[in-house]
Amino acid sequence: MAATQRILDFLATRRPDGPCLIVDLEVVRENYKAFEKALPDSRIFYAVKANPAPEILRLLASLGSCFDTASVAEVEMALDAGAAPHRISYGNTIKKERDIARAYELGIRLFAVDCVEEVEKIARVAPQARVFCRVLTDGEGAEWPLSRKFGCVPAMAVEVLRHARKLGLDAYGVSFHVGSQQCDLSAWDRALGDAKKVFATLAEEGITLKMVNMGGGFPTRYLKDVPVARAYGESIFEALRKHFGNAIPETIIEPGRGMVGNAGVIKSEVVLISKKADNDNVRWVYLDIGKFGGLAETMDEAIRYPILTPRDGDEKAPCVLAGPTCDSADVLYEKTPYPLPLSLTIGDEVLIEGTGAYTTTYSAVAFNGFEPLRSYVI
Amino acid sequence: MAATQRILDFLATRRPDGPCLIVDLEVVRENYKAFEKALPDSRIFYAVKANPAPEILRLLASLGSCFDTASVAEVEMALDAGAAPHRISYGNTIKKERDIARAYELGIRLFAVDCVEEVEKIARVAPQARVFCRVLTDGEGAEWPLSRKFGCVPAMAVEVLRHARKLGLDAYGVSFHVGSQQCDLSAWDRALGDAKKVFATLAEEGITLKMVNMGGGFPTRYLKDVPVARAYGESIFEALRKHFGNAIPETIIEPGRGMVGNAGVIKSEVVLISKKADNDNVRWVYLDIGKFGGLAETMDEAIRYPILTPRDGDEKAPCVLAGPTCDSADVLYEKTPYPLPLSLTIGDEVLIEGTGAYTTTYSAVAFNGFEPLRSYVI
Repeated sequence: MAATQRILDFLATRRPDGPCLIVDLEVVRENYKAFEKALPDSRIFYAVKANPAPEILRLLASLGSCFDTASVAEVEMALDAGAAPHRISYGNTIKKERDIARAYELGIRLFAVDCVEEVEKIARVAPQARVFCRVLTDGEGAEWPLSRKFGCVPAMAVEVLRHARKLGLDAYGVSFHVGSQQCDLSAWDRALGDAKKVFATLAEEGITLKMVNMGGGFPTRYLKDVPVARAYGESIFEALRKHFGNAIPETIIEPGRGMVGNAGVIKSEVVLISKKADNDNVRWVYLDIGKFGGLAETMDEAIRYPILTPRDGDEKAPCVLAGPTCDSADVLYEKTPYPLPLSLTIGDEVLIEGTGAYTTTYSAVAFNGFEPLRSYVI
Repeated sequence: MAATQRILDFLATRRPDGPCLIVDLEVVRENYKAFEKALPDSRIFYAVKANPAPEILRLLASLGSCFDTASVAEVEMALDAGAAPHRISYGNTIKKERDIARAYELGIRLFAVDCVEEVEKIARVAPQARVFCRVLTDGEGAEWPLSRKFGCVPAMAVEVLRHARKLGLDAYGVSFHVGSQQCDLSAWDRALGDAKKVFATLAEEGITLKMVNMGGGFPTRYLKDVPVARAYGESIFEALRKHFGNAIPETIIEPGRGMVGNAGVIKSEVVLISKKADNDNVRWVYLDIGKFGGLAETMDEAIRYPILTPRDGDEKAPCVLAGPTCDSADVLYEKTPYPLPLSLTIGDEVLIEGTGAYTTTYSAVAFNGFEPLRSYVI
């Protein structure tokens, strides 16, 4: 994974100053092909929010990908990259009515909902559009478990979709999200079981749902080994057959992190190494990127990125790792200190791997006067 | 506090679309005057990171304020606002050597340190500059306690300043930060006691420190009443006399939140109100601004902003309050739900008060395709 030869060559040749993300499009292409192979019957909707770099969107559009978007701005980015409107889903369950109207004007016909209130907005400004209702899952087994923010219980999903049909919308299907970095393959089985119940209840009323959106959650490799896309595909196919038998519906997946996470590497510089007292046994290592510069996902130390240093052969000792801002919350790893070489030196460049997703756009616009994270897509 | 008539008039007249911050310069002016009156013998270094809007910096420069900066970009902003270099401190203890050199070229002669490694960088590229060493405090009583990220124990501060003198720098003083939103007035007393010990130890070696930088931590009014600037000033003056007697050193304060927090109000719109199940007794209220749009300080629900709605007379019930992004971490208040009127309706505009500090610059550059928080300074 991660620091490919192309990325290393780019850094050696271009020597960009300041922290930056480098994304290798060849890895994105491989990931797309792997998903396609693992789930040949599912349509792939890339989650644009993971990394909306135009080069990534153009590559995926050319490969035939569809796009899951969170806002009108993301709809426009996907269109600009060459995706036709029917290949774009407005997947955010929280939308202003005027944004729904704008997306509809742009040709979007597929919308996510999780309550009747949202259905009513869509019915008013996007007549006959397709809607799918997000169902709550428990997110068990995910490294970054989702809260109850999105979705409703299956019984309410039935009401929501019934209401959609009543208002002239196309009650199209259900969606779920098993949680980001989901490593427990049975999570999809449980969620598909819930989805099937919604299908069955509505079928009794003559409403035939057509689609299951299985969301994202496909892990990228961080420090731990994770089952590869192939294993995911097999488990999901088995679960589909188990619950839907011969009537497997149209399926969609929405990989974001799984598509671009391992394609990116952040180059950073060691700004300071110090101790707080002579007898401290933990060093503080300060990098020129931190929580507000793009590494927001280290929140609660949830995600532990692999870090390469130029001195990795040397003896290591635990460090507290922190960012460069005057904000005491800008600490990456403290509860579980990070082992780094004792010989690490101020000015050394380090590579933070697995950072292709959820970094550039999370970065603060100008906190402490620092620029947002730059990115190079090669 | 907060939603002044000028702000209400601006909103009523201009009706800006989308979430935005409005800052009333008259409140900033009053806050500056209050600090000046409360601590007539201290120089005020406004913490630029709290809100670097050019209008705020220009007003404060014209009132005679000095500036505490966290980066070369902030140094440049303060210079652009009309501050002379001797009125600017480079207060970040974590600096690249080339950034120190650049600041020195721009005329900056006052730098923060908390270890010998940083002293060595400064000695190499900023000869004879003044340095002050940050001492660790326990931050007890602060709503957002600081970690050990900045500062060193007092015994090490002695070594750091001794080393600075040895390398030809001006060992100028010590600094501390009692923690943001510090409501315990005795915190300053304890920190000043530590500062005095460093002064005394170095005096025995013939090194006369001249300055105590008392940092920030002055609270702005959120939901709770806090002692006003005057009470702070009196407590601090008493503590100074207690520890330094007739030899009170030059003192500096660095208000950020205390200068601009209560001067700003964020206007937001209710995007969705829904439940997750028919029998839920907590509603979810989704705003068009959240943790990634500028309200990062709701992290761990640390800061609870007052929220005004157009229906505040009506009966209230607890809500989970969340932002508009497809990120399940983008929830503002969930552990302690927020009481809002039962009559609150999708499309209502709400005012989030006390948001003049640490909002615009924290906001993500483009997460989910949403623009960074706009701001109007009036």
